[in-house]
Amino acid sequence: MPVPPSGEAGRGARAFAELMTLPIPATAAPAATLLDFVFGEIWQRPGLSRRDRWFIALPCLAAADTEEPLREHIYAALHSGDVTIDEMREAVLHFAVYSGWPKASLFNMIVDEQWQRIHTERGEPVPPPTPLLPLTTPSDPESRLLAGEQAFRDVNCLPYVPTRDDPYSGAGILNFVFGEMWLRPGLGMKQRRLITVACVAFQDAPYPILSHVYAALKSRDVSFDEIDEAALQFGAYYGWPKASRLIDVIEEQKQRVTQEWAEEGNA
Amino acid sequence: MPVPPSGEAGRGARAFAELMTLPIPATAAPAATLLDFVFGEIWQRPGLSRRDRWFIALPCLAAADTEEPLREHIYAALHSGDVTIDEMREAVLHFAVYSGWPKASLFNMIVDEQWQRIHTERGEPVPPPTPLLPLTTPSDPESRLLAGEQAFRDVNCLPYVPTRDDPYSGAGILNFVFGEMWLRPGLGMKQRRLITVACVAFQDAPYPILSHVYAALKSRDVSFDEIDEAALQFGAYYGWPKASRLIDVIEEQKQRVTQEWAEEGNA
Amino acid sequence: MPVPPSGEAGRGARAFAELMTLPIPATAAPAATLLDFVFGEIWQRPGLSRRDRWFIALPCLAAADTEEPLREHIYAALHSGDVTIDEMREAVLHFAVYSGWPKASLFNMIVDEQWQRIHTERGEPVPPPTPLLPLTTPSDPESRLLAGEQAFRDVNCLPYVPTRDDPYSGAGILNFVFGEMWLRPGLGMKQRRLITVACVAFQDAPYPILSHVYAALKSRDVSFDEIDEAALQFGAYYGWPKASRLIDVIEEQKQRVTQEWAEEGNA
Repeated sequence: MPVPPSGEAGRGARAFAELMTLPIPATAAPAATLLDFVFGEIWQRPGLSRRDRWFIALPCLAAADTEEPLREHIYAALHSGDVTIDEMREAVLHFAVYSGWPKASLFNMIVDEQWQRIHTERGEPVPPPTPLLPLTTPSDPESRLLAGEQAFRDVNCLPYVPTRDDPYSGAGILNFVFGEMWLRPGLGMKQRRLITVACVAFQDAPYPILSHVYAALKSRDVSFDEIDEAALQFGAYYGWPKASRLIDVIEEQKQRVTQEWAEEGNA
Repeated sequence: MPVPPSGEAGRGARAFAELMTLPIPATAAPAATLLDFVFGEIWQRPGLSRRDRWFIALPCLAAADTEEPLREHIYAALHSGDVTIDEMREAVLHFAVYSGWPKASLFNMIVDEQWQRIHTERGEPVPPPTPLLPLTTPSDPESRLLAGEQAFRDVNCLPYVPTRDDPYSGAGILNFVFGEMWLRPGLGMKQRRLITVACVAFQDAPYPILSHVYAALKSRDVSFDEIDEAALQFGAYYGWPKASRLIDVIEEQKQRVTQEWAEEGNA
Repeated sequence: MPVPPSGEAGRGARAFAELMTLPIPATAAPAATLLDFVFGEIWQRPGLSRRDRWFIALPCLAAADTEEPLREHIYAALHSGDVTIDEMREAVLHFAVYSGWPKASLFNMIVDEQWQRIHTERGEPVPPPTPLLPLTTPSDPESRLLAGEQAFRDVNCLPYVPTRDDPYSGAGILNFVFGEMWLRPGLGMKQRRLITVACVAFQDAPYPILSHVYAALKSRDVSFDEIDEAALQFGAYYGWPKASRLIDVIEEQKQRVTQEWAEEGNA
């Protein structure tokens, strides 16, 4: 967005600039109305830290594939120090699994580009990347599947695992998604939960949205208040209809988790 | 959403109920914050009529495939009389073309269901549908292509047409999209423009968003003020990133159209 | 992706280069993890031919509208000879119908661009396009509707047809989608099925995903093993949540089809 010609900037434009670590943008209506809501109001709310809000906003932007806003947000998240480069790179991988690798490919390219830009601005060389190898997960197929089955139970807070002998659940879910991806170091479980909630909310497949909201709450990685704020943050980035669905799911899963905790306390 | 247990409802919840011709919903945060913004603020703004706002909201809801909000909006648009049943059915077809048939299938089913519901509530039989035949467009392939080429130029405000000898642009665009669909009676050009702008904004393919915003303005079917409000309405239903892209495109196309009008005035 | 500065490339990067008929890309973690999974593992699996995997990958890429991966895949599919230009152009039209014209517009432009590029590389002129006319379908409206009704039954493996007297199902579905598009020569039914399954899986409207998975299996155009692999291919390109929904639908429809075949065998 261009720099404003003159005069006073609205609350939203000032909040946008502060968050983005960028100059205050020019804003005519209707952009000003949206900036007031998204940056002046939603990002300022308590209940979910600014750092955690990035893990909702970034996957939404990558899914919306609106390149310029994605670029500004990645720059700001890294430049502000809210998100480290290793966390950002893991977030790209996590997003790729939950939204498909084509969209993640643009996300990844812009991370490289903005990381370079930040170092160019600082007059510093880009530090060498963290080597992929050695992996921290077992490479023997049987051991990877066993690790994947354990991670599937742990992450989903469920007592069962899907069959190995199916391409989707075996080669995909157990072998890679839970046998490798979720087990990678470099990104906290809370942040992985938030990315996953955002992705299942915009993908809105009927069951994953239930199971991942449930697991985020049941694991206590995300509190009831935090997930409410996450839904609102999501609504700002992905619109009212999908946020409305997410809010309904959150209400149901809060009740389910509360009841389970009560039963477990009585056990 | 359930009926609230008691007590005072927020501004957004009351505005939601008024628009939806439904009881006031129960709203806990964060839903209340969203209702305040979407229904208490955006829908109340001048610059785009309430009737026209449906033609942005409905395609966004159909695209988001969130069944309950889609149901409530279709009911309200028909029940209030803001949108006639013939307009609604043409809107489904127009949406199908710009967003794909699968999502339009649910949209169409819910229109049938809510139209039935409204008549059941009134104790009246559902009137018989308007017959498809005779079509108002020519049926001979050469004549259809000629009509499609003329409609392509008229609708897009462009002096050229794409090649016939390509399945996408010939069999699809000229033969059906412009040779039949855009020429159907029963829905005004302004409403077709608004649906199209919403669809190209959430689909966000790089060129159609430019060409359809341009044509909406150039044709004077949608005014500069109306398209600003349409962008804001879109933002409420599809989130800030895609709205931000739409707003940037609108700014560019306003300049282009303004310059063209100035040149045409001097010619 | 850039060419790697030096050193040894991972399995995924080599597999990517082999498939893409392009140089081996540079890959840092975690991108390498994705290349290993998508290109080193998924694309190498038996059960669905490499040729058929394009008809899942291409619509997913066009839907994700990530331009560079779409470009590389279109180039590779044509350059390798896995997909002919006529098949590719019919795939664009089929995709346009199931995902909306705006996204198909970029797909079509990149097909033109890459087809030109391949001929430039070969020092050959681009051959002239296949003419659109004459169409192979009837042009009289009543005959088109009759042909559309028959094709609707045949393609969907269903004994009924929707009403003509509705813009969506009459002017759209019967008149064009089944009365023309599905009946066009130049692309096999199996490939049309795979494109359709990919599109209904990412659109995830509740009923089309059921009916098109059912019909792909019931028609025996796609085998049980092939559709399992198609779901995995889809998951890699569009993410786990929507693939998870597709897998659930596949399981249900396999049971339904198996039971129907058993009953038909006994009849």
